Order: sequence, then C-alpha cells, then structure tokens
Amino acid sequence: MNKLLILSNSAKEYHALIKKANLPNLTIETTPTPETNIVLGETGLIKPAFASLPALAWVQTTTAGVDLLMDSTLRRDYTLTNARNVFGQLMSEYVFGYLLAHEKRILARHAHQQAKRWDGSVPGVLYGKALGLLGVGSIGAEVARMAKAFNLRVHGYTKSSEDSPHVDQYFHGDTLPQFAAGLDYLVSILPKTHATDKIINADLLSQLPPHALLINVGRGNAVDEAALLEALNQNKLAGAVLDVFEQEPLSPIHPFWTAPNLLMTFHTSAMSFPESITRVFVENYQRFNTGQPLKYQVDFERGY
Amino acid sequence: MNKLLILSNSAKEYHALIKKANLPNLTIETTPTPETNIVLGETGLIKPAFASLPALAWVQTTTAGVDLLMDSTLRRDYTLTNARNVFGQLMSEYVFGYLLAHEKRILARHAHQQAKRWDGSVPGVLYGKALGLLGVGSIGAEVARMAKAFNLRVHGYTKSSEDSPHVDQYFHGDTLPQFAAGLDYLVSILPKTHATDKIINADLLSQLPPHALLINVGRGNAVDEAALLEALNQNKLAGAVLDVFEQEPLSPIHPFWTAPNLLMTFHTSAMSFPESITRVFVENYQRFNTGQPLKYQVDFERGY
Repeated sequence: MNKLLILSNSAKEYHALIKKANLPNLTIETTPTPETNIVLGETGLIKPAFASLPALAWVQTTTAGVDLLMDSTLRRDYTLTNARNVFGQLMSEYVFGYLLAHEKRILARHAHQQAKRWDGSVPGVLYGKALGLLGVGSIGAEVARMAKAFNLRVHGYTKSSEDSPHVDQYFHGDTLPQFAAGLDYLVSILPKTHATDKIINADLLSQLPPHALLINVGRGNAVDEAALLEALNQNKLAGAVLDVFEQEPLSPIHPFWTAPNLLMTFHTSAMSFPESITRVFVENYQRFNTGQPLKYQVDFERGY
Repeated sequence: MNKLLILSNSAKEYHALIKKANLPNLTIETTPTPETNIVLGETGLIKPAFASLPALAWVQTTTAGVDLLMDSTLRRDYTLTNARNVFGQLMSEYVFGYLLAHEKRILARHAHQQAKRWDGSVPGVLYGKALGLLGVGSIGAEVARMAKAFNLRVHGYTKSSEDSPHVDQYFHGDTLPQFAAGLDYLVSILPKTHATDKIINADLLSQLPPHALLINVGRGNAVDEAALLEALNQNKLAGAVLDVFEQEPLSPIHPFWTAPNLLMTFHTSAMSFPESITRVFVENYQRFNTGQPLKYQVDFERGY
C-alpha cells in the first residue's frame, strides 16, 4: 500500500480530487508517518517536512520551479518530479497580454479616457517583431508556438536543446550578444540555477535596442535588479514587466515600485490549478504504482 | 493610359510607394481631371470628389469599412473595392490584447503597484472560454484563428457564409439568442448596414452571462448605446471595450467616458498602414490593367 501525504495550501482540494480519481493501492494521510512514501505539494512546505519522512520515495511538486529543494545539503534519496505541460498556456497568456498591452498602449489609452481625451494616435503591432526566449522548455515552447501564431520571429537561447519547431533560430553558450541583438522583446522563462544568476545584466541589457521590452516570468535571480533599474532610469529600454523578484514579496521600499516604465505583477503569471496538477499526479502515480519510470523527473545536478 | 488620383491624408506616402512599384500604363495625378479613371483613398475624401470624376471606373479604399459610399443616392457606376486581408492581424491583436488585459486584470494590477500593494490574487484565463464573433469575414476569420491558437471555443454569427475552419459552430438568422447563450466574450466585427443597426441591443445583452465581456471593433451603429449603458450600470455585464461609436469623435458629455467597466479606444484598433494597402492596390491594379475581375469587390446592395 502506498501512503500519500499532501503538503499544500490547497490540500483539501487535492484530497478531494485524488480521492475522486480512485487510484489503486493508495491511502491519503494527513500527517507524516514512518510509512509515507509519496508527497504531493509545494516546495516551501515539503522542505521542512523532510526530516519526518524516512520512507520517502517520490515527491511530486505542484509547481514548475523546484529551486528550494536544490540546495546540495538537502536529501536527494528520492525521485523528484515537477509540474510540466501545465503552465505553458497560462504563461503564454500572460506574456502576450503584456506584450499587447505595451504595443496597444492600454494603460495610456485608459488614462486618456479618464481625461476625456480622444486619442487617435496609431498603436504598435506585434506582427513581424522579434521575440527572444531565454529558456525553451515546455513553457518556452508554448510561448514560441503562440509567437508564431502572431507572426513573430523567434530566437531561443538554451543550454543545448533545440526541441521546439516554433523557434526560428537557436543560440547557446557565449552567443548571448548575438541572441539579443535586434530583439524587440526579451522574455525570460529560466529556472533558478547558478548558471542563470543575473544572466540579464548590464551587458545583456546594453545589447537590446532602446525600444525593447523585457518580461521576466521565470525566476527573480535571472535579473540583475540594479542594472535593470539603471537601464530603465536612463531610458535604455522601453520597459519591463516583472512577475518574479530576487525577494518575494518585494520590500515596500524597493525602487521597482516606482521605476519608470516598469510594470509589476506578483508571482501570479501561472498559478497552479489543482485540477491540472492532479492530472499530472494521477498520470505519474499510475507509473509509480506499476514500477515504470516517472515523467517530468528533475535532475538534481542540473537543477531543473 | 490609366490616371490615378490619390485622396488620402497619407497621399504623399502612397504616391512614393506606388511610384516605387513602377506600375505599367499609369500616371499619378494630384487633382481630379476629366480623365481620372482610378481613385485610391479614404471614403470621407472620395465622396465629395464624385462630382468632379466623370471618367471614374474604379475606387480602391484604404479602409475595410465603406459605409460612407453606400447611400443609395450616391453614384454606383464604378467598381468599388475595399481593403481586405490587411486588418485581420491588427484587429486580432487588439481583441486579444483587451481580452487578456481583462482576464489578467492588467489595470487593477497596475493600480495595486501604484498603491505598493503585493496582490497575489489569481488572474483569469482565456483557455477553454467561449468567444462569439458577430461577423466572420476576413477579419473575423483571423480572430477565429487566433482564438483557436488560445484554445477557445468559437461561435460565429453570419448572414449565411460558413467559410472559416476555425469557427466551431455557426449561427444565422433568428438564432442570435442561441449564439449568445453561454458566451464569455462577444466580439462584433460587423460592417455598418441597415441589418446591423443596434443588433447588440437589450435583448442580446440579456442573453449574455453577467461575467461576459463585449468588444466592438466593427462599427458603432451595431451597439444600442443606451442599452449597453444600462447593462453596465446594473452590472449585467462584466465590461465592454469599444473602439467605435455612433458618433465619432465621441461627444465630451457622452456618458460612455465615465461608465463603469467600459474601456474606450478611439477608432484605432486597425489603422491603415500605407505599405499594406499599397500591396492591395498593386495587386488589383495589375488585374485592372489586364482586364481581369478585381479582388475585394463591394456589393452595393449588400453594403459590404
């Protein structure tokens, strides 16, 4: 008999959904026991529970990001799987929502409406622009697919993979300047690893044309916040849209709150929906229960 | 020799672009002459010039809408072609920009940023929602294509055509209530004709669920403005986005300026780009010059 512990702020919802799935050979526990061998949940709740889970064999996270579990001092004697193919459409909706809000000047038009000013100026277009993706995993591939539907050109920067058919040109290694040159939009979907720390720094920002827009929906560590502030303050960049930050929630005295042409959201670009995550869990549980290799396994060395 | 008169606020740009196209058997005029047989331009400038164009054979408009030339008292002794396959992507960008701004609460998030409030509430999604298109011509077909890329369900209401493969279900005639029932988004791309006058009236609005969003990018005549105001004021509709109005520019005392959950833009959802329109003109000129039937001909009886 497998024993599942749910460690999530939506534990009740997950409990009901998994119970309904009627999975064979499974009991659901509400507290850690010496027999708990499976955990489903949020990384921030799982990490402190490690010590009370001697029989732990498999952790399925409800998130794509797993950086909280990557510290090399933490245990690695279990199989870790994260949530994939769940966040792509949500992230894509966010990215194109903000790209279009930028081009169509939705905030400025709203201000003109409030001032009762008929503003017939010509809005911008996505059509034919160049989008660069930092990171092309399952989320990036989905953003690339929508970018092609909008008739954008797509650059992809990855460690080595070239899997998406919707990326026009791939870049790796030390070709970041070539990747960035001429981009209209730079979108980061990178996971948090040592290799991605401050990858969006003054150097990379200086490669972008001044009309470029930066969007970060990956992790806050990828952005050198001081360098981005400087670029925005000096109008070296048309704007930035940030959903993630070095420290969250953002300190109330952080200069981002009032930086020019910076739009912030609050780590909400792709919230987990228990229904979608439960589908991932159920699929993987059926593999676990029959001894097959699990999908969406995280590589502890690589960090994602 | 064909004689072309350009009647447009962007006449200089059109002149340069057409000269560059080096079309055979064509001279470009700057004022109407007894020999002028072709006119390219904006309907509002063409209409008053009709009397000075005795040899008029063909008018190519720079717009999709041609309602200003449809009055039955106006001449119809020429071939009228409008601009098609030009505005689809622009309109589509506008529609999805505002749909996403609505779901992602871009204006509210911005207000929270200004108030330095970390707002972790879950945004809405397009995924799986139902979009209804009033009018599925070349623009509607493009909006339908993007809707499928975003995984929406698509209802199409047309006079009789069922041409787009991206419409899941077509409706005609007196089935407007069935078309509207259960829609999350209603988008009007209708031309101005007698048949479309106030088609979005209290009846149709009452068929929509209260969480529905209305977008009008067609013509202002399609909306019963008093009925829409009433629906918004009574929260019978989540919101409306209007780019077109009964009277433009909108009167400064019109209640729309301050109506709740109403976003306005200013007939800017699809501005003509001379490069794109010139491509349409060049294509049609080559047909005209060799005696072939022109593309994008307007039917005076139908009105579009």
